[in-house]
Amino acid sequence: MDVWDAVRGRRSVRKFKDDQVEDELIRKILEAGRWAPSGSNMQMWGTRKFVVIKDKKTLDMIRKVSPGYLGTTPLAVLVCSDQKVAYQKCGKLGRDYLTIADCAMAVENMLLMAYSLGLGGCPVKSFSSTALKHILEIPEGVEPELMVVIGYPSKKPSTPPKIPLEKITYVDKYGDKLFK
Amino acid sequence: MDVWDAVRGRRSVRKFKDDQVEDELIRKILEAGRWAPSGSNMQMWGTRKFVVIKDKKTLDMIRKVSPGYLGTTPLAVLVCSDQKVAYQKCGKLGRDYLTIADCAMAVENMLLMAYSLGLGGCPVKSFSSTALKHILEIPEGVEPELMVVIGYPSKKPSTPPKIPLEKITYVDKYGDKLFK
Repeated sequence: MDVWDAVRGRRSVRKFKDDQVEDELIRKILEAGRWAPSGSNMQMWGTRKFVVIKDKKTLDMIRKVSPGYLGTTPLAVLVCSDQKVAYQKCGKLGRDYLTIADCAMAVENMLLMAYSLGLGGCPVKSFSSTALKHILEIPEGVEPELMVVIGYPSKKPSTPPKIPLEKITYVDKYGDKLFK
Repeated sequence: MDVWDAVRGRRSVRKFKDDQVEDELIRKILEAGRWAPSGSNMQMWGTRKFVVIKDKKTLDMIRKVSPGYLGTTPLAVLVCSDQKVAYQKCGKLGRDYLTIADCAMAVENMLLMAYSLGLGGCPVKSFSSTALKHILEIPEGVEPELMVVIGYPSKKPSTPPKIPLEKITYVDKYGDKLFK
């Protein structure tokens, strides 16, 4: 699928079929996340970690502590920042900021890839980090940043309202419109 | 260009030709950013703002206060979060977190789109926010989050080291490897 078609056609999917996601597709989605950029190429130290959740009971527990996780899905990927590693390599800025942006860029790659493979996904931030750390036995210094829930969509969601470029784009000075 | 080829082939480009980027390509890149997901679809309120910088003098000033902005480029896009709007709509969580992730997802879309159009880009976080706000007259409550510098690459960069999936991917429990 073409990049533009994926960017333009991707929707946040919240209703899924029961069908499992094939292992080779899971790998492709994770690979897309792995290839996302990272500040100072910190990913190479392992600052970005992926926890794939396939076990139904675990998914059920996670849903109970994640208000943003609606409905049921056969798959979720929790993207974590290893802040301990980030801090060791890049200090406070690395720990506090870059890892969040890095995780989000990996999530966007995963969402586009999932969509291009006929799957649907939704980024989820509304969860209890404490509970997720407990359920998934995530150690100190590793922080759940964003989750992606994935599955085969049971129906294609409609397009949500998107603000026109004209209202959010300036040129050379904040407030000077690029598009009239 | 295919999504996978874009995700896999995209590099952070830091050396560019002098050629200007055509207006229709700039628009396509911004559109890709606009279509990125956002927490609670907050983008529709204008939480994400794009400041396009094309003026050479302004680009020069920005480069001087941005250690991460290497070389010269004919174009930069600064993605800002309108934290005032985010706070009004979604409180502290909206202001502190979602907008950063939202900006990063927009940046990844822009990078993939730029690459698919034959351009190159690099995300830049290492800049002085205070100086950028001054140069671009960005008002209080709007925060520069990430910049993308864009142009025609003068050469294709080599692939940086990427950590294998096996080292960063767990299943159902942190530490349990999905791939052996």
